[in-house]
Amino acid sequence: MSSPRGNALIGQSGGPTCVINQSLVGVVEASRDSDRIENVYGALHGVQGILDENFVDLGRETQETLERVAVTPCAALRSVRKKPTREECAKVLEVFRRHDIRYFFYIGGNDSAETAHLLNEIAVAEGYDVRLFHVPKTIDNDLRVTDHCPGYGSAARFVASAIMGDNQDNRSLPGIKIDVIMGRHAGWLTAASLLAREHEDDGPHLIYVPERVFDLERFVADVDEMYTRHGRCLVAASEGIHDADGNPIFSSKEVDSHGNVQLSGSGALGDFLAATVKEKLGSKLRVRADTFGYLQRSFAGHYSEVDAREAREVGRTAVRVATSGEAPHGSIVILRKDGPVYEVSFGCTELSNVAKVTRDLDEAYIKGDRDIAPAFLDYVRPLVGTMPSAGRLSDFPVGG
Amino acid sequence: MSSPRGNALIGQSGGPTCVINQSLVGVVEASRDSDRIENVYGALHGVQGILDENFVDLGRETQETLERVAVTPCAALRSVRKKPTREECAKVLEVFRRHDIRYFFYIGGNDSAETAHLLNEIAVAEGYDVRLFHVPKTIDNDLRVTDHCPGYGSAARFVASAIMGDNQDNRSLPGIKIDVIMGRHAGWLTAASLLAREHEDDGPHLIYVPERVFDLERFVADVDEMYTRHGRCLVAASEGIHDADGNPIFSSKEVDSHGNVQLSGSGALGDFLAATVKEKLGSKLRVRADTFGYLQRSFAGHYSEVDAREAREVGRTAVRVATSGEAPHGSIVILRKDGPVYEVSFGCTELSNVAKVTRDLDEAYIKGDRDIAPAFLDYVRPLVGTMPSAGRLSDFPVGG
Repeated sequence: MSSPRGNALIGQSGGPTCVINQSLVGVVEASRDSDRIENVYGALHGVQGILDENFVDLGRETQETLERVAVTPCAALRSVRKKPTREECAKVLEVFRRHDIRYFFYIGGNDSAETAHLLNEIAVAEGYDVRLFHVPKTIDNDLRVTDHCPGYGSAARFVASAIMGDNQDNRSLPGIKIDVIMGRHAGWLTAASLLAREHEDDGPHLIYVPERVFDLERFVADVDEMYTRHGRCLVAASEGIHDADGNPIFSSKEVDSHGNVQLSGSGALGDFLAATVKEKLGSKLRVRADTFGYLQRSFAGHYSEVDAREAREVGRTAVRVATSGEAPHGSIVILRKDGPVYEVSFGCTELSNVAKVTRDLDEAYIKGDRDIAPAFLDYVRPLVGTMPSAGRLSDFPVGG
Repeated sequence: MSSPRGNALIGQSGGPTCVINQSLVGVVEASRDSDRIENVYGALHGVQGILDENFVDLGRETQETLERVAVTPCAALRSVRKKPTREECAKVLEVFRRHDIRYFFYIGGNDSAETAHLLNEIAVAEGYDVRLFHVPKTIDNDLRVTDHCPGYGSAARFVASAIMGDNQDNRSLPGIKIDVIMGRHAGWLTAASLLAREHEDDGPHLIYVPERVFDLERFVADVDEMYTRHGRCLVAASEGIHDADGNPIFSSKEVDSHGNVQLSGSGALGDFLAATVKEKLGSKLRVRADTFGYLQRSFAGHYSEVDAREAREVGRTAVRVATSGEAPHGSIVILRKDGPVYEVSFGCTELSNVAKVTRDLDEAYIKGDRDIAPAFLDYVRPLVGTMPSAGRLSDFPVGG
């Protein structure tokens, strides 16, 4: 199948990651090198920028600028949270024709794959030859087919470093500490907190993911048990924990009936859990919550090297697959090779395999209803890179 | 004045920093090298560990362990929040006699200086020769005499990196974002957010410190003004902001009269400010708050190199001053030399100069009532080390 000659367009969509611009730069570099691509443009604010014809010429950027952008967190082309309607998609195709866009690379999560999929259906129906590719990114790590998602390794590294530090904090000044971690539907990021557990008594002592039902009474009993055992308790909880009916913990009926804490805002879940523990286990306990928030996806200067490299390569792969005619459309995936040494290859899957449905944390990685299985460490360690290791005094007895 | 020969004891007190163990290791190293010190012990959980005679022998730790501990955040000897009474101080002196403690190094904030001061008064009155030294640490940077405090540079680096990333996040997905930063009484840490402002339109667009009165109406007008100007607004606010009567914003009467948000927990101030902006400026606005929390003082593997070096040297200096007889007691200080190149020396001041009273952010560093002056950058830049710099696309027009 011969590939068209024309212009390439790139967009970025959804929440940021620390390496999302590595993929952008990968696409730009490979586009410049391709004899199928004449100009490489960027749409500002994703699909909204296409509808507005708000384009920039990425081919004129210097390599120095591109390298600086690559290590800067969050969409350099600016982002958008928008799922275009079928009518808007038809308008996008018009814009593509007007600017002779023959290659479109959409960097984003599964919504972006869906947008590319919808655009492809219309383009095929209209007989306009444009190669539509989804370039994956998400800190949630919830895309299907791919072994892991660019952006996840860096966010996981952030979460693990934060929990490792907070475990030292909690050991130094004992109490009950609850940390709320991003991931509304999948527990991948919360699971990364396990990396902080080096010694048997290290936190996180309890890990709650959205793949399990969260029961408030049981949670309080769990905390009580760990506090009794260790004299302290560090909890890692996903923001997406929910009751048996699937209702989020901070708006479920059971919770509202307490009436003593009004819930709103980003810190509400953590503050509610802390208030509940204090109420049930004793007001004199030192209980506190932190919600890690946007820092997980955008903290400057802190990322996983392997994540950065792979994110760049995923961008380059998209251009290679698109311009070689290997596939007329698709979503780029990272495939992990079997064996004791971490090694990956890059490939492409159908857009429909990635659009719509997301992927939960594997069952094999969940231990009971309040912990993560050690097997998960083999999965996650290569993705975050070498972590700092916490030093401990030996506590030699005096005169011993 | 001849220095006594005997044992040395070290304690750590108060909230953690990322380099507090550098000072601990500095004291241990210098104590081992001193011919005045026979054994170097650690008290677990600060003054509480002295009262309980809960000691460990630090002299037996390997250099490898010490180096690993040095780069690990939070008190390796564990910490305590306790200001001993005069009776307890008398008991501490008894313990000192029993273990032949002739040197005591207390690593902490101004409360620890006060404890050392009180112990010194009793020791002098009793005629027991023990050299009491305060080794400064605090992320709040609010100790007097010293140019800056060990621990501050690393926390400032964390805050600046977080705000730099969040500025990219906010630029990528425009909205109103409020970040709440540690520092109940002094704005030093919040001021470090200014390091993130590289371009004229970069956030933080508004910076609020406790050295100024915070007015909720004016705050909303400020946000409105910046949102109109930039199409987005990033706010850095100290957790210690307060009204004209000195009442914290999240419990003042003016705030309670709103009645629509119940305030409790660590995320409450940020969530309240976000809810207020939404209510006043429009419910359709994208408004969100993050409270950086404990991560600022304990994030693993992320610190300022200069802060780490100085924290080590402050510990060594304490032993040098104590054993040389240069001063019978005191608090170690960092003195910045005049001139264009950052250079410091280490010295010692009276305990009474550091105990009790803290230091606000210098007036010269505050600009109006909602910003930090550029002069502050000259002060803070050498303390945080080389920061990442945010890359931006040039946004070349297409066909231009």
